[in-house]
Formats: sequence, C-alpha cells, structure tokens
Amino acid sequence: MITAKARAMSGPTAPFSTITVERRDVGPRDVLIDIAYAGVCHTDVHHARAEFGHTRYPIVPGHEIAGVVRELGAEVRGLAAGDRVGVGCLVDSCQDCPACNAGQESYCRRGKVLTYNGVGRDGATTQGGYSELVVVDQRFVARIPDALPLDGAAPLLCAGITMYQPLRHWGAAPGKRVGILGFGGLGHVGVQISHALGAHTTVLELTEDRRADAERLGADDYRTTGDLVALRDSFDLIVSTVPTSYDLSAHLDLLDLDGTFVNLGVPDEPLRIDPYTLLTNRRTLAGSMSGGMPETQEMLDFCAEKGIKAEVEVIAAKQLDEVYDRLTAGDVRYRFVMDVATIAEA
Amino acid sequence: MITAKARAMSGPTAPFSTITVERRDVGPRDVLIDIAYAGVCHTDVHHARAEFGHTRYPIVPGHEIAGVVRELGAEVRGLAAGDRVGVGCLVDSCQDCPACNAGQESYCRRGKVLTYNGVGRDGATTQGGYSELVVVDQRFVARIPDALPLDGAAPLLCAGITMYQPLRHWGAAPGKRVGILGFGGLGHVGVQISHALGAHTTVLELTEDRRADAERLGADDYRTTGDLVALRDSFDLIVSTVPTSYDLSAHLDLLDLDGTFVNLGVPDEPLRIDPYTLLTNRRTLAGSMSGGMPETQEMLDFCAEKGIKAEVEVIAAKQLDEVYDRLTAGDVRYRFVMDVATIAEA
Repeated sequence: MITAKARAMSGPTAPFSTITVERRDVGPRDVLIDIAYAGVCHTDVHHARAEFGHTRYPIVPGHEIAGVVRELGAEVRGLAAGDRVGVGCLVDSCQDCPACNAGQESYCRRGKVLTYNGVGRDGATTQGGYSELVVVDQRFVARIPDALPLDGAAPLLCAGITMYQPLRHWGAAPGKRVGILGFGGLGHVGVQISHALGAHTTVLELTEDRRADAERLGADDYRTTGDLVALRDSFDLIVSTVPTSYDLSAHLDLLDLDGTFVNLGVPDEPLRIDPYTLLTNRRTLAGSMSGGMPETQEMLDFCAEKGIKAEVEVIAAKQLDEVYDRLTAGDVRYRFVMDVATIAEA
Repeated sequence: MITAKARAMSGPTAPFSTITVERRDVGPRDVLIDIAYAGVCHTDVHHARAEFGHTRYPIVPGHEIAGVVRELGAEVRGLAAGDRVGVGCLVDSCQDCPACNAGQESYCRRGKVLTYNGVGRDGATTQGGYSELVVVDQRFVARIPDALPLDGAAPLLCAGITMYQPLRHWGAAPGKRVGILGFGGLGHVGVQISHALGAHTTVLELTEDRRADAERLGADDYRTTGDLVALRDSFDLIVSTVPTSYDLSAHLDLLDLDGTFVNLGVPDEPLRIDPYTLLTNRRTLAGSMSGGMPETQEMLDFCAEKGIKAEVEVIAAKQLDEVYDRLTAGDVRYRFVMDVATIAEA
C-alpha cells in the first residue's frame, strides 16, 4: 500500500483539510503518477458539497489530473518513467462491453469507475486528483504531448474531451455553423476546438462581458441571447454548456434543417420542450458525456498541434474553500488548477 | 373556375354537410384529379374541431388523397389523363429554398401550403380531399403504382411518408433494432415499412390487444410498456406515434448507445425529459414532420414492391361525424378512408 497526502472534505459543509490517502500497490497493468496539477471542475463542488446526493466522506475530488509517471507495472506498454500523462473522469470500466470495445468507456454501463466518489473493483471508494499521487490502470492514462503545459493541459482531461467528443461526433467542420452556448470552463475550450476544426464558431452568451476573450480564442462571432429571434434557423450544431435551467425550446429554434443541439448540463429540473420545436427543421436534441480514451488521446494530440489549452488560474491547496465559493458564483476565467506541490504547505 | 361537391364543417361543433367548393382553373403546371378515396386522419379532427386554434370555416379536411388524373396543364411532364395519383399534406411550398431544393418540401419555412386550412398563393383558404376533385401543382402529385389499391394507398400519402421518412433517415436496416411506439394509424404502416427495410422490429403498446395484428403485419416482437425496465438499452431507433403526453424519459431509457428516439406527436403540453437520460448512451431525441415529394414517391414505389398498404375501413360520406367520434376514442383498425363517390348520396 502506498500513501499520499491529499486535500479532502469530511462533510458537505466542512472546510478542506489535508489527510493521508492509501493508493493500491502498482499492479501489472498499473501506472503510478506523481500529480503536478489538478483541475478544479464545478462538478467537484457538486460532489463535495453533496449536491448530487450520494457522496462518501471523506472525499478527495479532482478528475483533471496532469503529472509525471513514476512507476509502471510489468505489463504496461508504451509508457516510461518520466513521461507526462493525464487522467480524466474515469479510472476504470468493465473493459469488455460493446461500449468499451468501441473505445467509448464513458458510456460503459457495467463497470464504470469514477476517478473520485466512485467504487473501484476492490470495493474501495476512489479518491481523486487533489493528491500527491495516484495509481491508475494504463487504459485510463493518456499521454500529454510536450507542446502542452501541464497546468493548461489538466482541464483538457475533462473539459477538453467533454467538448471535443460532441464537436467531432456531430460534425464540426468547415462549412458548418457551430454555436457554443456559455463561455466558461467548458465553453472557452470548446470555442478553440470548434474553430480549429474549421467550423464557423459563434459564442452565445448572456452579456457582452466575455466578447474580447471569445474573439481572442477564435470565435468568429459573438451574440448575446437577449434576441434569439434574430438567430433563428441559423446553426447546424449547438453545444450547450449551461448547467442550469433555461428556455430550451427558444434555443432549439436556433437550429436550421437537420441541426443538432447537444446538452451537456444536468440541471435540477427536467428539460421542457415544445414538441413542435423539434418537428420543425427535423431538429435533434442530444446528450453527451465526456468521452472514451482513444478520443481523449486524439484530443490531447489535436490540442498540442493547434496550440489549444485551458486558460487557468493556478491556485494553492489552501485556497480550495474560497475557490469553491467562487466557482458557485461563476467567478472564474476560465478554470482553476491546483498546484499539487502546495499540499505540503497547506 | 371549377366547382365540386365536398364535405365540410361550418364550425367546431357543427355536423358535416355537403357544400360546393371552387377549385382554380388548371394552370400550366397543374393537375386536375378526380378523387376516389380520402383518408381520415386524426389530424383532420384536430383541425376541424379547432383543437389547434386556427381553423378557417367552412373547412373541408383531407390530406390523404388518392384518385385519377382528369386533366393536365401544358407544362406538366410525366403524367397522363387516367394515371393513378395521390396528394398528401402539402399542395405547395416556396419551391426555391434550401429545403425545397433538397426535396424536403415539408421543411420549407417560406411558403408551405397545407392541403386544407392553409393559405394558397392566391390568398384563398385551401380545401382538402373530402371532395370530388382537386387541382394541385404537379410537384405535389405522386404516382400510385398499379400494385397498390387506391383505398389502401390513400393513407400512405400522410401516415406512410410520416413513418417512412424517419425510418429511412435514422437508418432502419438489417442489424438495427427498431421500436414502433403505438400501433395505430401510423404505427401499423410503420411496422410494415420497418420490417420490409430489414430491421428487427418491435411493437411497443399499452396492452396485448393488438399483438395478433402486429405479428401479421411483420412485427418481430411485441412488448407491452408496463415493464419498461426490462427493455432498457435495447433499441437503436424508436419512432413514437403517440399523440398524447406520457413518461418520455422512461421511454428514452430504452435506447442503447447512440440510439435515436423520434417523436412524431404534438401533445398539448411540453415534453419533459430528465437531462441525464440523454447523456446516458449519448441518446438523441428528434422530431420529424411528414416528408418531401421525392421521398413520397420512393415510399409509394417501395410499398408497392413490398406489398405494404394501410388496413382500412372504407366509410361513406354521411358517416364522418360518427367516425370523428370513433377516432377521438381511438376506435379504429387502422385507418378510415372515405369513398368519395358517396358524397353524392350524403
């Protein structure tokens, strides 16, 4: 058994403190990673503060992990000590169902293991990336190309693949009109990816506040959503990163013939749709959840080639409570990343 | 101006009576059709009884028209007097937008003209198929192959194309698992088409009542929807013909990875969906509205080749009031078709 310091919450309103977590011994297919940076995703807040209703305490959040390989199991191929690697939302799956066999591990229904607040094959609760090190099955370890800085790469392991998958799957490409609804942690990566894929990319936001950033990151257009009628029937694909409830039907109206609206958010209440809105223009509403490991690697290589990374504010371990409050208030441009070396001083 | 007898309602609760309607003179691109049969679609009831809230009286319903060409304009090509033809939900469109140019006239947003209760280019309210004859732009006239009886073919002009389009567009084919939700006027045609396309076709119904009919028409399986949990994750495509509200999320759960649920119904209230239901399995929810003219012809040719037709109860013109009540009560197996020759004796 290996131990590591980690930042944890002991209950839904407890402050973060430093605890010692146990990691399993390095098995034949395992990779031991010294974590350098851990992205702080809004989902972490939901889990840590028990807003999803099924949190096991103490909880060590973190599913945007970037670090360096320290040790490898005997059967691991293609990686070496010192390699720069990342881990995202999953650390295991059944590895043998149609979804897994298609490289779509995020859609595995039989044995998906979340990176934290999940249950591993050994029955233990998983603990995430706010920690000095982690041991992960090689299948769930991706290489981070040298061209990417580890801090700006960490959020790609969740935000990056969560945007890359729907943009690729629903055909963002030259000649396509793509809308990114919400320009935050997900959206600011999505705009870069959509633009790099060659699609005409429009940011859709509530206010003008983020126009300059959006244009700097590749947005071809920036529209506020106060006047949706003017934007009707003008998109082939919209990816919504909005986590809360809003007038979905009015936004579906922005799709042209055979357009697709991908909803990534999980608001507390049901989505409500005027049925005629979908009949018009043969529109589709889809969901999408993270992405599989082959596509995660493809995304990292694509981001390295195109110079895409998250815009991060690097924080110290002792700032986590304050940063959680800021995330809840939407006060982040555009992703927090914890410098794991600061756990020692927290 | 040409005149014809027709069956009309003069108000939302008025009984049907026989009136004389005017049809325009046959223009260079027009086809004058002697109507033999007019299907009676549940949508007719909604329009005639003002349940959609925008009915112009008197109304002559009917958008499932089968008949014989009497006269042709000088520019009409490919048709001759005596040819068996059909007309569906549309009698005109702008004929010059991207949708029309793609042969998707049902998605035209600029100038779609419904077969009845619409407004034609001349500003007049359109009057439908419960009538001795009709004059229609050749673009909206389809040939009915000799192998199809006119009475069983009439409903294909609406129910047939409404099912054929989504089944083809979303890939019903060998190796695909297709569910037809609701075995009524639309569903009983959809099952035949899906089966003929080679898909493994399951009828999903509330009770066992229609099992024998479904199996006779080609259903590979028949399941009641009382126990949806047993059917989870087991369909690639579901086409829902249900016109009323139901637990949509529970039915979306029946889709496997990358499955599509096509909703054809327009209930009075919004569709409600648990957002996580769509994220799981990367599911999509789509709408679909009738179909374009090239695909309508393709559908009729396909039905003729495969021996597909609607199962009809032929009614006389004087039975329309009673038949509307039966449609409202769901008492039909599986489509009413009015014999237009009986208008004279009504």
